[in-house]
Amino acid sequence: MNPSEPQPALICLDWGTSSLRAYLLDGAGEVLAQQQRPWGIMNLPEPLEHAPPAQVPPAQANDARFKHALQDTCGPWIQAHPHLPLLACGMVGSAQGWREAPYLASPTTLGGLAQSLGVVTRHQGMPLHIVPGLLQSGSLPNVMRGEETQVLGVLATCANGAEQPLLIGLPGTHSKWVHAQGQQIHHFLTFMTGEVFAALKNHTLLGKTMQPAQTPDDDAFRKGLQVVRSGAHPAGLLSHLFSTRTLGLTGQLPPTAQADYLSGLLIGHEMAGLALHLQASTQPLPQVVLCGEPDLCRRYSIALQCWDLGTPMLAASATVRGLWRIALQAGLVDGHAKPASLTEGTFQ
Amino acid sequence: MNPSEPQPALICLDWGTSSLRAYLLDGAGEVLAQQQRPWGIMNLPEPLEHAPPAQVPPAQANDARFKHALQDTCGPWIQAHPHLPLLACGMVGSAQGWREAPYLASPTTLGGLAQSLGVVTRHQGMPLHIVPGLLQSGSLPNVMRGEETQVLGVLATCANGAEQPLLIGLPGTHSKWVHAQGQQIHHFLTFMTGEVFAALKNHTLLGKTMQPAQTPDDDAFRKGLQVVRSGAHPAGLLSHLFSTRTLGLTGQLPPTAQADYLSGLLIGHEMAGLALHLQASTQPLPQVVLCGEPDLCRRYSIALQCWDLGTPMLAASATVRGLWRIALQAGLVDGHAKPASLTEGTFQ
Repeated sequence: MNPSEPQPALICLDWGTSSLRAYLLDGAGEVLAQQQRPWGIMNLPEPLEHAPPAQVPPAQANDARFKHALQDTCGPWIQAHPHLPLLACGMVGSAQGWREAPYLASPTTLGGLAQSLGVVTRHQGMPLHIVPGLLQSGSLPNVMRGEETQVLGVLATCANGAEQPLLIGLPGTHSKWVHAQGQQIHHFLTFMTGEVFAALKNHTLLGKTMQPAQTPDDDAFRKGLQVVRSGAHPAGLLSHLFSTRTLGLTGQLPPTAQADYLSGLLIGHEMAGLALHLQASTQPLPQVVLCGEPDLCRRYSIALQCWDLGTPMLAASATVRGLWRIALQAGLVDGHAKPASLTEGTFQ
Repeated sequence: MNPSEPQPALICLDWGTSSLRAYLLDGAGEVLAQQQRPWGIMNLPEPLEHAPPAQVPPAQANDARFKHALQDTCGPWIQAHPHLPLLACGMVGSAQGWREAPYLASPTTLGGLAQSLGVVTRHQGMPLHIVPGLLQSGSLPNVMRGEETQVLGVLATCANGAEQPLLIGLPGTHSKWVHAQGQQIHHFLTFMTGEVFAALKNHTLLGKTMQPAQTPDDDAFRKGLQVVRSGAHPAGLLSHLFSTRTLGLTGQLPPTAQADYLSGLLIGHEMAGLALHLQASTQPLPQVVLCGEPDLCRRYSIALQCWDLGTPMLAASATVRGLWRIALQAGLVDGHAKPASLTEGTFQ
């Protein structure tokens, strides 16, 4: 081993519902190696060696599946470096996960999260620590699990600048919009936009006439946004949705444009809701940062500008950055976090 | 045959996507007999006798399936009374149906509909007439097919009174709200409420924790309505949906109450959209009439009152009444329409 080479310092895991991403980090929080498996908590592999299901208690079988997924993904790293700490975030800490890391009350801070890690004791090896999710109480409660880590990662990328208030958008299956600043998570909203889009596309009449497009049809997407933005059609989302069909029936929306139009309607309604929420606040509009899959961030960037919510900054690599920051704060590792890239939005 | 007994005068068919309902009517439009089959246009029976599919052109095979479904449902009536006229409404007249009855432009009248019937020529027997659907042009077009007949049926039940403007609500997979008066259909809206409910319940995270309730949970339904009605949560439907999960996670909404709560959220958003649409009109609030499945009408009745849209009247048997009225107007039969039952809403 060359002593001048960076040495592994942490194994961190982004362990969600549908996939498991693992990263080997050095003492500066840089990624030395990574692995990805489809072993989300709802899709764990069956260990070959264990006894037939009927003879194994369910909790023990569950434990064996998680162990097997971890071994399959990180086995060589753990074998080579048996004393590395392990830190995970995401649905692995839910009631359906490996071990429940109970929700921490929001608002909270980096310190609060780092003090509240769940632990899976591993028989022969270092324990696996799990970042808790956040629960925001109120007449309509809100929860997140995994996104708190992304948010801390995004905040870390701004550590060199003034600690200005940010509105961090995490578009996806369940879009989150998080008011945060410095090391604090203040308040957040959830929109089920991505999951509703998939359910409408795959399981209603609207999907039956859709055909895949070669490239995203931004005109159709903007047309969907404008139905909401114009205010000319006050009957709301459940009414607007049907126009995906009727514009198709009347030859005004080709089959290849219908999915992007529907996406525009839904993201448009998310923007309208976000804008009303922001109007209800006495604070000035915070700087918006988007963090997510590039094509989604591009769409949200268009939509934000359509609602006059400013030009978003774009953040990358937020989960790994957040896990590193939590590991540092919790004393699992020593080191110095490095700011990751944060770039001006360019999708206009 | 006893000459004093009512004689059959019309076979009418309510032929939709998932089922076929057939009625034998006498010369006063009264139902003498009825049949129901699951032979919706997307679920037609395969005739046993026809040649293997590869040897039959698709159009001919399609024709054979519709013929077989008609024969299976109404065969004995047609055999006993081979000269009875036949009139159908619904998706049987769509592009995916037996023969397309092109959309008629809305606004329209009873006379306009009766003059525009589509026709399926039957080799040995009377032709099958088909009521066209309606197309309302505009920047967001709207369509209906089958509901125009229901609306005429509802209007017939009011023929004895003053011809006041009505707002006719037809809750269901795609709820329709129709401004109509006398023999005229003026304007209509569509909300995809029922289909969105089913897609969310069956194909998203929200359905995973739901358990069936023994009886409808009206408290949960009203709680969902109030989230929308109160205005305290301005972020809109895509945000409100997630509370079905979070209220469950925090023990405030039992699994058996979650479907009714979700129903309340969705019907609440339909009401909010309808109310905004009505506010944009300079006309006074019309009398509301509901026509549909009893439990749905009960829910909508609660919701209408929650939005101060009045106590709805309830109409029954509207499709048969509408088909009879169109048959009379088109000269397919001679007779006198009788008003059907229209009762005060009692679900408060």
